[in-house]
Amino acid sequence: MSFRSLDEFRNLLTNCTAHDAKILGQAEERNAQLTKPPGALGRLEDIALWYCSWRGSPKARVSSPQVIVFAGNHGVTAQGISAFPAEVTEQMVLNFRAGGAAINQLSSCFGAKLDVHALDLDHPTQDFTQGPAMSEDDCVAALRTGWESVDPNADLLVVGEMGIGNTTSAAAIALALFGGRGMDWAGRGTGLDDKGVELKASVIEQGISQNPNASADGLEALRCLGGREIAAMAGAMVRGRDLSIPVILDGFICCSAAACLNAVSERALDHTISGHESAEQAHKNMLAHLDKSPLLSLGLRLGEGSGAALAIAIVKAALDCHSGMSTFAEAGVAAG
Amino acid sequence: MSFRSLDEFRNLLTNCTAHDAKILGQAEERNAQLTKPPGALGRLEDIALWYCSWRGSPKARVSSPQVIVFAGNHGVTAQGISAFPAEVTEQMVLNFRAGGAAINQLSSCFGAKLDVHALDLDHPTQDFTQGPAMSEDDCVAALRTGWESVDPNADLLVVGEMGIGNTTSAAAIALALFGGRGMDWAGRGTGLDDKGVELKASVIEQGISQNPNASADGLEALRCLGGREIAAMAGAMVRGRDLSIPVILDGFICCSAAACLNAVSERALDHTISGHESAEQAHKNMLAHLDKSPLLSLGLRLGEGSGAALAIAIVKAALDCHSGMSTFAEAGVAAG
Repeated sequence: MSFRSLDEFRNLLTNCTAHDAKILGQAEERNAQLTKPPGALGRLEDIALWYCSWRGSPKARVSSPQVIVFAGNHGVTAQGISAFPAEVTEQMVLNFRAGGAAINQLSSCFGAKLDVHALDLDHPTQDFTQGPAMSEDDCVAALRTGWESVDPNADLLVVGEMGIGNTTSAAAIALALFGGRGMDWAGRGTGLDDKGVELKASVIEQGISQNPNASADGLEALRCLGGREIAAMAGAMVRGRDLSIPVILDGFICCSAAACLNAVSERALDHTISGHESAEQAHKNMLAHLDKSPLLSLGLRLGEGSGAALAIAIVKAALDCHSGMSTFAEAGVAAG
Repeated sequence: MSFRSLDEFRNLLTNCTAHDAKILGQAEERNAQLTKPPGALGRLEDIALWYCSWRGSPKARVSSPQVIVFAGNHGVTAQGISAFPAEVTEQMVLNFRAGGAAINQLSSCFGAKLDVHALDLDHPTQDFTQGPAMSEDDCVAALRTGWESVDPNADLLVVGEMGIGNTTSAAAIALALFGGRGMDWAGRGTGLDDKGVELKASVIEQGISQNPNASADGLEALRCLGGREIAAMAGAMVRGRDLSIPVILDGFICCSAAACLNAVSERALDHTISGHESAEQAHKNMLAHLDKSPLLSLGLRLGEGSGAALAIAIVKAALDCHSGMSTFAEAGVAAG
């Protein structure tokens, strides 16, 4: 069950599965019996219950996390909106493959498999200040790359990205879907100065006026303003839902992909959790729009899935506690 | 080099070593060359530099973390300030030894060795509303238990605790050292209601008036208001400094031990980092007094070293990135 058009993808999204309420009840029952004061593990308890309800087991564990990094190039870099040249996208893909990037270290630190997909780097998307970034065929192909890249045996998914210029793309999507002004969503990216941020704000405002359909529909926002890697992230997230694999959202760009899905169906992100709040200034606002509270806030602004990969540790620990601890009865401890 | 009196312990504290400034410079140089925009790993970069400077290597890793849980019983439980009976301290020690508690799961999740030390549980400290909780000999013995429990081969240390009644002890220490009123420091502990918190506030105020020396000196605060497990935590932290082993601070009770050291020497906590902000209400205020910014804030209020053990993941990841990533030159990536 895959898709060949944006409409078929939209159907998948609007008909997606819910969590298992019966399993949730069983997991809650178990949680109440564990050797700790009620609620003393804080958000770890919520995470464990959420995860169990999506995995269909009241005593689930995380053993096979997958991190997927998608890379794409952006025509809008012609507007001079990045501190790094576009060549860096491909150079970093080689770095991911050689094991030299932060995401390599973070993935191996927490036992995650890392896959890297470079999407047609020699053919950047169209500059969205001139019209739609992608044709429908281009966008569907990128969504399918994402969909097909998810390992059906994974039990936790992180989707990350690399793409010089893609905070501009993400900011344009946010402006289209959430409104406001360009300056509300334009941030420093990899290191713009104040003047660079002002330019970026005007570039994304141009993108909105050139692509009037983007504001009316999440998938049009994705096609007209997104990049191939952003579409691939969206495809992978929906495939996660299809396979009952919970997803940890990364920073600003990852959340712009999530926002496109959320605009189509308000239940689309129920199987996702926010891994971290990025230092990219508008991410906080974006998380508020998505009604997600981040697990971590450590000032990361790297992309690559790095913040979400770090949060794998928290989700793993939550499930180890939930599924590995003794109950009061098993341990012979007075329940207070 | 150990100690036989509080004065000898005080001497150790006031003469403790500093970090290695030369190594710090080398680590900063390396950090600037890694394949990421400058600063893009946020606090992970600060953690890595701090850790390297204490370990004496510009490319250090965390491979042997140690978690030590100290348990003690408190005479002040006679005042009815806990939601759980005092027997639970020993029951939980058995649970730690059997592998059934949260700290067992968190330690094994991040590759830490867990040691448990029960301190004379059959002889609770004196009720501090009636006079000093410990004699000097008692306090020194507990400090030494902590000192001797640190594995010289560990490269990261978490000290946790179990002791029914010990948030009351920690709150009394905070009141003695930082001032304010009882209600500023009394929290819900393992689950007190409003009335219980008011009682606790008045109990700690009584403790302060019964022990006037406590407010003038960190080690007197520890002796008069602390518990054996709190003193052991303090001893272990100072031993960490002695062995160049960085320490992750846990929640309210752990930080009350740290506060006693900090009152003696404002450099005493330089080798420590705050692992998390606890849901115990006064912890935020205590961290502000100690000038520590927590790595995590996930609503934990369990003790046992749980929040700090969770933060091992963050420190490990920071060092894996710092010491494992490629430089721009190694990877052939343009440096922007």
